Amino acid sequence: MKKIGIIMGSDSDLPKVEKAIAVLEEYGVPFEVHVFSAHRTPDEAAQFASRARENGFGAIIAAAGMAAHLAGAIAARTTLPVVGIPIKCNTLDGVDALYSTVQMPTGLPVATVAIDGAANAALLCVQILAVSDAALAAKLDAAREAGREKVLEKNRAVEAKYNK
Amino acid sequence: MKKIGIIMGSDSDLPKVEKAIAVLEEYGVPFEVHVFSAHRTPDEAAQFASRARENGFGAIIAAAGMAAHLAGAIAARTTLPVVGIPIKCNTLDGVDALYSTVQMPTGLPVATVAIDGAANAALLCVQILAVSDAALAAKLDAAREAGREKVLEKNRAVEAKYNK
Amino acid sequence: MKKIGIIMGSDSDLPKVEKAIAVLEEYGVPFEVHVFSAHRTPDEAAQFASRARENGFGAIIAAAGMAAHLAGAIAARTTLPVVGIPIKCNTLDGVDALYSTVQMPTGLPVATVAIDGAANAALLCVQILAVSDAALAAKLDAAREAGREKVLEKNRAVEAKYNK
Amino acid sequence: MKKIGIIMGSDSDLPKVEKAIAVLEEYGVPFEVHVFSAHRTPDEAAQFASRARENGFGAIIAAAGMAAHLAGAIAARTTLPVVGIPIKCNTLDGVDALYSTVQMPTGLPVATVAIDGAANAALLCVQILAVSDAALAAKLDAAREAGREKVLEKNRAVEAKYNK
Amino acid sequence: MKKIGIIMGSDSDLPKVEKAIAVLEEYGVPFEVHVFSAHRTPDEAAQFASRARENGFGAIIAAAGMAAHLAGAIAARTTLPVVGIPIKCNTLDGVDALYSTVQMPTGLPVATVAIDGAANAALLCVQILAVSDAALAAKLDAAREAGREKVLEKNRAVEAKYNK
Amino acid sequence: MKKIGIIMGSDSDLPKVEKAIAVLEEYGVPFEVHVFSAHRTPDEAAQFASRARENGFGAIIAAAGMAAHLAGAIAARTTLPVVGIPIKCNTLDGVDALYSTVQMPTGLPVATVAIDGAANAALLCVQILAVSDAALAAKLDAAREAGREKVLEKNRAVEAKYNK
Amino acid sequence: MKKIGIIMGSDSDLPKVEKAIAVLEEYGVPFEVHVFSAHRTPDEAAQFASRARENGFGAIIAAAGMAAHLAGAIAARTTLPVVGIPIKCNTLDGVDALYSTVQMPTGLPVATVAIDGAANAALLCVQILAVSDAALAAKLDAAREAGREKVLEKNRAVEAKYNK
Amino acid sequence: MKKIGIIMGSDSDLPKVEKAIAVLEEYGVPFEVHVFSAHRTPDEAAQFASRARENGFGAIIAAAGMAAHLAGAIAARTTLPVVGIPIKCNTLDGVDALYSTVQMPTGLPVATVAIDGAANAALLCVQILAVSDAALAAKLDAAREAGREKVLEKNRAVEAKYNK
Repeated sequence: MKKIGIIMGSDSDLPKVEKAIAVLEEYGVPFEVHVFSAHRTPDEAAQFASRARENGFGAIIAAAGMAAHLAGAIAARTTLPVVGIPIKCNTLDGVDALYSTVQMPTGLPVATVAIDGAANAALLCVQILAVSDAALAAKLDAAREAGREKVLEKNRAVEAKYNK
Repeated sequence: MKKIGIIMGSDSDLPKVEKAIAVLEEYGVPFEVHVFSAHRTPDEAAQFASRARENGFGAIIAAAGMAAHLAGAIAARTTLPVVGIPIKCNTLDGVDALYSTVQMPTGLPVATVAIDGAANAALLCVQILAVSDAALAAKLDAAREAGREKVLEKNRAVEAKYNK
Repeated sequence: MKKIGIIMGSDSDLPKVEKAIAVLEEYGVPFEVHVFSAHRTPDEAAQFASRARENGFGAIIAAAGMAAHLAGAIAARTTLPVVGIPIKCNTLDGVDALYSTVQMPTGLPVATVAIDGAANAALLCVQILAVSDAALAAKLDAAREAGREKVLEKNRAVEAKYNK
Repeated sequence: MKKIGIIMGSDSDLPKVEKAIAVLEEYGVPFEVHVFSAHRTPDEAAQFASRARENGFGAIIAAAGMAAHLAGAIAARTTLPVVGIPIKCNTLDGVDALYSTVQMPTGLPVATVAIDGAANAALLCVQILAVSDAALAAKLDAAREAGREKVLEKNRAVEAKYNK
Repeated sequence: MKKIGIIMGSDSDLPKVEKAIAVLEEYGVPFEVHVFSAHRTPDEAAQFASRARENGFGAIIAAAGMAAHLAGAIAARTTLPVVGIPIKCNTLDGVDALYSTVQMPTGLPVATVAIDGAANAALLCVQILAVSDAALAAKLDAAREAGREKVLEKNRAVEAKYNK
Repeated sequence: MKKIGIIMGSDSDLPKVEKAIAVLEEYGVPFEVHVFSAHRTPDEAAQFASRARENGFGAIIAAAGMAAHLAGAIAARTTLPVVGIPIKCNTLDGVDALYSTVQMPTGLPVATVAIDGAANAALLCVQILAVSDAALAAKLDAAREAGREKVLEKNRAVEAKYNK
Repeated sequence: MKKIGIIMGSDSDLPKVEKAIAVLEEYGVPFEVHVFSAHRTPDEAAQFASRARENGFGAIIAAAGMAAHLAGAIAARTTLPVVGIPIKCNTLDGVDALYSTVQMPTGLPVATVAIDGAANAALLCVQILAVSDAALAAKLDAAREAGREKVLEKNRAVEAKYNK
Repeated sequence: MKKIGIIMGSDSDLPKVEKAIAVLEEYGVPFEVHVFSAHRTPDEAAQFASRARENGFGAIIAAAGMAAHLAGAIAARTTLPVVGIPIKCNTLDGVDALYSTVQMPTGLPVATVAIDGAANAALLCVQILAVSDAALAAKLDAAREAGREKVLEKNRAVEAKYNK
């Protein structure tokens, strides 16, 4: 199976990024985690991205806050799908990171998820791999069904409490 | 090759969506175009989405404006990758569509591109298919290189004009 | 009397939604509470909405946060009045939910109240039922008068403290 | 049948408000149109609102721009459902009117529709009257079905053009 | 000397409004404090405003949050200067109150100060009275000078600490 | 009668500022117009402001766009009431000027009116002068009444057209 | 004299960037203009930046729109001062470019000017060179004085027209 | 070596400004710290700025919140580079200070850094001095390299933890 690269711009993003790791582990999808900064270690980020396809990666997740250039910098060096997680920092409620991640120019898409949406970033990568992996697709469907069951159960609890 | 579904919430979005069609044609990626409204034809949208994988689709693009629920409604019915294009309408500069598309809850990612970013939505789908299609990946790399050449040429023109 | 349906997208919204329940109980308006997710249990949400009128509902309240599609998804399946409560979540101060709820396309109104405005959502439903129910209208007028009295009393307290 | 009051803060809002009038005429719902300003003719606005129920109104639409106080001022004088249309003016893209209309305090809901959403404001009033009027509800369902047919037809046209 | 009316929409605004009271007391300017709600006690608010000039008021301060109509409602009933304080509530950081207060239509100005800027609202009223009251103007100048001295002193402290 | 100073940061603001001039002429209030830039002619701005009271001014209007410092710079040099008009320029819809004008620190209020609200700025100055000028107050009341009549007339026209 | 590098992300930014060129020509400051894209020609951008100091540059201007990474990408490869011009594109009024440019992480400042503020970007570079160049500083002071004169002249024209 | 002036509008900004002081001390760059308010001590601010070049300053940092006029007021009195730090206060998340600082008119640039970005403001000043100071430039490069090493080390730690 192709690997997923999880890159974060700073290890301070790790607590949020760990939700992505958990999703990939849940699906048994192999991954690598790296701290590459678009600004402080641009060569390492570029090198990783430019060799990612030949190194067996199927998609790359990039998490960054503020003027969040990481996902775009990765996307500039690979034609693999790049998934961007805008990280909320001390000001601006993550809107700076959202705009810096999603408003990419034509030719270099970044698949952007919700602010701090690390779990969904990983899930999107699983969906991408599952396009050509029926077993993984079946796992996604099963998890979706399980999610449905969980809401139904919560619904039953709420109905039991309020609807006499 | 897997097909790409291109869904728009209203045929008034077609002029913007045509840029996505052009990209897919350029890459020789098969596609289907549909007008399904999350609100006016929810059953048709749901049916399309829920059968998309078995019908040979590899990813679905959803374009919608205002309270842009289309991508989310599609994502609710399939575990295929769903790519959302927030469409700018008469007010709010597309921020309403951006927030309605990107801020999805955990479990249901929508891969969001820039406001009115139809070309990038299609390119992202090509990237997704290319994860397991080396020929397509090669085409993406060639197009990236061509884009690079185009900027280099523009650079030479600008340099020739201003740098004596 | 017609019933009010109170739907929330997640049971984590319950603490906010309970203010709506309290208002309906105060007015003696019958209601049902459900957890239906536009994304995780779309069929249940659709089914509830499409049968709501024949099942004796007069209006439906839908509370959801982030890319808040629930009210719109309900509105897509019924022509009953649908009241939307945008719920504030971790980022964006509820603006994402407000835009996702209020910016509905022509043909599918969602009667939107303030961010986290659950009490007003319920009150609006009571007002809707009271259009054809003089006793309920009288209760609304009495409550309005009581609210007026409460402000007058607070005014007297403040006047007594500051105006010698 | 109950009447709908359509109030606008300035006759410059008339071109936008006429879409509400058209919807009410289409449904055969009786209405009255008035220009009452929350600021310039507050007494007339207050008088109209405070007598609206006894004068046979079932709901009131209020359209205003900028610091859009009209809907709130009407809501302060009646317990009928009040529907607010935020009107986009020269600056701020209608966000000022949206916030001034929707962010009402507890006890005084304003059912807010999209910026410049006059047609939906009227449709919401028809829905409110239809709660106790089965014939009107049937008309709403028929119009919804007609809207569905229109999207299906547009879909067929788009499919015929793009899907070979 | 003319009095200043201090009106707040809810007594929950009192902790913020007390800064305005303190300023007026400091300048020896007579005032009255009232809780009048634009929505819950509109008649009392209107009555107060419409008689304010004959009752010896020189300006009116109105403090309110969310869809902050109070200052506008007061301005609609008097041609005295009305000073609006937008109050920050639970969501939207006070922007809703700011827009609802400052974006008044032509003919009905509200002199708006910063979000939660109660002290400045009172100071502005003192400035207004001082236009025709040289003693008050002298007090303002003295206070300004005192404020200047305070900054100079802080500057000296900082300079002493950091500039060797 | 005291004079009103009308200061604009650039003569490109003149078309908008002329509405303020027209209002003052209508009320027969004496005024002076100046182009003083907070940044390009700060000494002239400071000098004007610091001598404004002794030179017979009762209030100063300051109009500026973008990082609109003019009103604050004037306020820093006088304790006369300063009225700020945020001017909308090419970007940001005037929000930059609004925030730069209204968010003044404690001790230095700027009475801010709506974006591009020049007429209201002048009207506010008339109201300030009228605090101690009964004749001017009577004119304001008459104009208010005339404004009321105008709305009533427009109302009659609209009622005649739509209400049969 | 050190040279100024003017980099733009796309030659479509040229009409706005030409104002920067004009300023540098006016001051006789040598410069080079290049089209380097942070995403399409990242190597060329990196190479230019990393050698800029040894190649005789004193500062680099970077102009880009949307998710404007160019200034940050340049700043990642040099410790020369980097001046960022956020370019307004079709949506979001340039706020996306402003946030992407100014919200840089600690260690990598980008000296950001106003949206579309190309002339000021160049002027800032002249100021930077003038820190160690008294002749250039004198030119800046003379231009400042000329700007002052221009405002004074405009002021005289306005005063002549309005102040009798 | 030229000195850096660090001006803050209020000593309450000191905790944030101290990060700028630390950077300058780290680089051995001489500096002066002052509390000058654009509004409360405008003469002192103006005097400092207008004599800064002759007094041996090479650049001036100005930190202020809300309607942050300080940087612009300094820029109006000197042609030295002025670096603005927008300070986040109680409301609006620092956007008011950002707009008030960055949106300067043509002719008066303020080099704006991120909200609360004091360290970067100082670093930018070091970069400005380093344009003509090779030793300082070498220190900047060394610090950049050290920053790179720190990220590499964090990367190794994360890699060791997650990549087996």
